[in-house]
Amino acid sequence: MITTANIKNGVNVDQLVGTINAVQENPSLANFEFRAKNNWIDGGHCVTSIKDYYGVGEEHPSREGDFTLEADHVEVLLGKDQAPNPAEIVLHALGSCLTGAMAYHAAANGIEIEGMESRLTGDVDLHGFLGLDPEVRKGFNGINVKFKVKSDASEDQLRALSQFSPVFDMLTKPTPVTIEFEK
Amino acid sequence: MITTANIKNGVNVDQLVGTINAVQENPSLANFEFRAKNNWIDGGHCVTSIKDYYGVGEEHPSREGDFTLEADHVEVLLGKDQAPNPAEIVLHALGSCLTGAMAYHAAANGIEIEGMESRLTGDVDLHGFLGLDPEVRKGFNGINVKFKVKSDASEDQLRALSQFSPVFDMLTKPTPVTIEFEK
Repeated sequence: MITTANIKNGVNVDQLVGTINAVQENPSLANFEFRAKNNWIDGGHCVTSIKDYYGVGEEHPSREGDFTLEADHVEVLLGKDQAPNPAEIVLHALGSCLTGAMAYHAAANGIEIEGMESRLTGDVDLHGFLGLDPEVRKGFNGINVKFKVKSDASEDQLRALSQFSPVFDMLTKPTPVTIEFEK
Repeated sequence: MITTANIKNGVNVDQLVGTINAVQENPSLANFEFRAKNNWIDGGHCVTSIKDYYGVGEEHPSREGDFTLEADHVEVLLGKDQAPNPAEIVLHALGSCLTGAMAYHAAANGIEIEGMESRLTGDVDLHGFLGLDPEVRKGFNGINVKFKVKSDASEDQLRALSQFSPVFDMLTKPTPVTIEFEK
């Protein structure tokens, strides 16, 4: 008998169900730690390397090629605009995470998605960052995401799928951040 | 008379003071909108393009070369690991933002920084994302940042500088995210 993999939205549904079953049998497999190392270059210009992580009960010491990502600032904010700025990188993280979460959870629910694109905007008032008004927040006042999704799913279904996004959760609910300074 | 630019930590302090003065004279210059466009490829693999933005009272229609960034998932989470995952991208955004904010605000306060590096970790329990336990959050339970900063500044001073980071603000305090589905 020839069997073919059960793929939906580019997600191997058999593997996804297998992962869910494995986590239900052994809950500690669900603990992951992701990591990044950032090195300052100058001004707002820096570079991040992303290599190892911990997950499904073991260390994953490195990945083929590892990843190197830069950040900089736009020229009107005194940067050299050699890379996206951290606020734009947040939009990239959010858009990617919503999209991936929708593809995975649609697949798990038998919903086919043919195409997805999104436009993200975030507005900020620099009175916060510049320290000119303590009442103004330093980050985005809000982020708007406009999705175009090619699917038979209803808007309510798509919205429910999007709510599984970890980055959406991290932004909309407080995420504790501890900062230590080592000698 | 020959004058040289007043550069500290790679930041042009004269321009920084000029920006602060300009915003104080014309508060609307402080309004920025950053943007990103995300296109799904398949599964958790997608690509973001970052081009235009609005700021200091005008549109900036594109930048030299624009920026293209990918996201994917690690193989144990059914991806092909062709790019960092969205959670790792959040660590990149946070590390870059803290570092840039410290460099800028140190410069504005006459504090010299010779070097900075940071290691970021974020821990997540997949029971949240997989929908296995509604009590478990989908994003990072917490993020830890370990900084090594070469500077005469005290730890208290460095910590105060770091608190100006917009991405630190976006993660630690709720950021409203609205999602629209267009036809």
